[in-house]
Amino acid sequence: MHIAGQPVTATVPKPELDSRTAKLQKTLCSKGLGGALIVEKTDLYYFAGTSQQGWLYVPAEGQPLLMIFKDYDRACQESTVERIVSISGTKKIPSVLGEYGCPLPEKLGMELDVLPAALYFQYNTIFTDSKIEDISLEIRLTRAIKSPYEIDKIRKAAELSDKVAAHVETCLQAGMTEVALAGQLEGYCRSLGHQGVVRMRMFNNELFYGHLMCGDSAAVPSYLASPTGGRGVSSVIGQGAGFARIKENQPVLVDYVFALDGYLSDHTRIFSLGKIDEELCRAHEAMVQLQNRIKNLARPGVLTGELYEEMVAFAAEKKVGDHFMGFGQRKIRFTGHGVGLELDEFPFIAKGQKMALEEGMVIALEPKAIYPGKGVVGIENTHVVTGNGLETLTQFPDDIKVLK
Amino acid sequence: MHIAGQPVTATVPKPELDSRTAKLQKTLCSKGLGGALIVEKTDLYYFAGTSQQGWLYVPAEGQPLLMIFKDYDRACQESTVERIVSISGTKKIPSVLGEYGCPLPEKLGMELDVLPAALYFQYNTIFTDSKIEDISLEIRLTRAIKSPYEIDKIRKAAELSDKVAAHVETCLQAGMTEVALAGQLEGYCRSLGHQGVVRMRMFNNELFYGHLMCGDSAAVPSYLASPTGGRGVSSVIGQGAGFARIKENQPVLVDYVFALDGYLSDHTRIFSLGKIDEELCRAHEAMVQLQNRIKNLARPGVLTGELYEEMVAFAAEKKVGDHFMGFGQRKIRFTGHGVGLELDEFPFIAKGQKMALEEGMVIALEPKAIYPGKGVVGIENTHVVTGNGLETLTQFPDDIKVLK
Repeated sequence: MHIAGQPVTATVPKPELDSRTAKLQKTLCSKGLGGALIVEKTDLYYFAGTSQQGWLYVPAEGQPLLMIFKDYDRACQESTVERIVSISGTKKIPSVLGEYGCPLPEKLGMELDVLPAALYFQYNTIFTDSKIEDISLEIRLTRAIKSPYEIDKIRKAAELSDKVAAHVETCLQAGMTEVALAGQLEGYCRSLGHQGVVRMRMFNNELFYGHLMCGDSAAVPSYLASPTGGRGVSSVIGQGAGFARIKENQPVLVDYVFALDGYLSDHTRIFSLGKIDEELCRAHEAMVQLQNRIKNLARPGVLTGELYEEMVAFAAEKKVGDHFMGFGQRKIRFTGHGVGLELDEFPFIAKGQKMALEEGMVIALEPKAIYPGKGVVGIENTHVVTGNGLETLTQFPDDIKVLK
Repeated sequence: MHIAGQPVTATVPKPELDSRTAKLQKTLCSKGLGGALIVEKTDLYYFAGTSQQGWLYVPAEGQPLLMIFKDYDRACQESTVERIVSISGTKKIPSVLGEYGCPLPEKLGMELDVLPAALYFQYNTIFTDSKIEDISLEIRLTRAIKSPYEIDKIRKAAELSDKVAAHVETCLQAGMTEVALAGQLEGYCRSLGHQGVVRMRMFNNELFYGHLMCGDSAAVPSYLASPTGGRGVSSVIGQGAGFARIKENQPVLVDYVFALDGYLSDHTRIFSLGKIDEELCRAHEAMVQLQNRIKNLARPGVLTGELYEEMVAFAAEKKVGDHFMGFGQRKIRFTGHGVGLELDEFPFIAKGQKMALEEGMVIALEPKAIYPGKGVVGIENTHVVTGNGLETLTQFPDDIKVLK
């Protein structure tokens, strides 16, 4: 974490970049690709340590080449990549690569899960001798396993998630609107160094800090692949905090992401002004028990699809099945997701998933129960997969925090 | 604007949607396309009045069909489109369209400027009898001309931009960090109903509220297509407010976007605690003069490229040329941009642009002067293009606001 007042460098150490590049190169070789051209800003940061505009060419073997359009000097300060050159535009890529001894390969990997089709056509016209193939799955798999350096970053973000949860008590008052509480918490987040932006990779998805809603408005469904929706401030945004006024004796959901140095910690706690409905209290307890049960089961080698089924079965056993991860027809088919530089990283704890957990994955588990007309309860914490099960990074108590 | 406590509907009136659809249909006919399939959430909201997940099929002639995957009931509440149906996934699009009497056409328009390549391939596999063509330019041109309904929305956002500028005085103190000030202003924005998210269309671009930086850190360049950059909280974000402490006698740039009901108002003001450098004061005055001169020149029919050249020439005349829109090699080649539901809408007041201004366009003009090591001065307001030149929606005084 940066100390206020200090200049920001936040350079990713060279051994870290080298290790990430080596992993990618291994998959390039196994796929028969001669190289990958990284352009999406989060991937670029991951492999080059800078988000300045440009391209990182990673050959299947040998040194990568970082070509920067804007801002070159800044990229040189931020990145520990050895070879950084200035480039005047997309059309120059083939000649610059040739000049530096790494001509475009016959088969070139690019991030086709995020690269717009119109840009893909443009690259195709310029890279006349290369066939562009999708390398996004391999990049996302590389990013799914976090290094100790990255886990340390997420650990610090998680500590700040806990501070935000503790801060709710100082702001929450009956009669205030959801957005008023959101604004106070978000302002506090910024003072702690929160980057504001919470990045999601999937097309059409977006999130502003997370979901903060009270009572029945927390149970309003939305377009997002999330158990909660929320009315939002308008139908343009269609999710999250809106203008509902917080009342006594209703659950207030605070599902906020802390984003520090790019790395995310995802965290949900339930607050209330006075006691809430008994049925919801019991459901909350069931969700916490479910989380704790899964923490011991979730070990390297376990399939994420099986973990999901375990969670669904446990919720049914606890008689919360009808409300688990959505109500009626509106259930979503996942109970957790990887987090890192983006909120929707591998692995997904979801129906039918064949991916096995591996040491170093970081996941947010979010067993939640949705009661239309009443509200949402449940828990979310960010955990590291270790040889002994999950290590939980977020520490604020899991119980409903009843205030006053 | 929604009144706190009221339920949110924010439905776009049917005549508004009909008029937008009719414009799009006219361009579909002129391009020889049988229909357009809208999927990007902002475009979907523009043409259907909801951001719920799904597709709007607009045939070249006849009624559109809104197919909703999630959440159907919510889309039915939010949208005034007449025909709304539930759909279980992408693969069902051809059969659902056939069922409702609008089979997929030979040539189908899609938003290829934002649709990821991998999804484009998927659609291509499903729409076996259609050729997919890029309709994004036509959609963006349709959206560039705002209706009175939309201008009213932007006017309300602009009123709130002014309130935010007035609020700076109550927060700004020597010694606080940029992010601390940012957090206080952002919290205030949210209490006024700011949606948080500021959408940009261009690949790899993002913005969190805008740019708030003091002194030399405002002059740090970034990857963004913007005259200002800023250190940001880390090299992941690489722009905007960071951990620099605000000092006396330096310009504090507050370039923030207010986003209300989806619509944006873009607004820059300079504040200072005590007087700032004379050279910067003179440059600020020149920027305000430049803005006022352009306000009279900017009429329907004027080419945006010519307006840009006028601004560059006037800055040179005022001896601010070297610092105008960037310093040295780091100049950006635009001085303004359209605003609406996104921050980077047509038209662009930029080098070489042949687009003519039209009545109903809404533009943010942002003449700024960058002094490396010292700071940034200049002005930005949001204006409507009328038959008599620009009508300025943001009203907070343009001069540097010297506090204490």
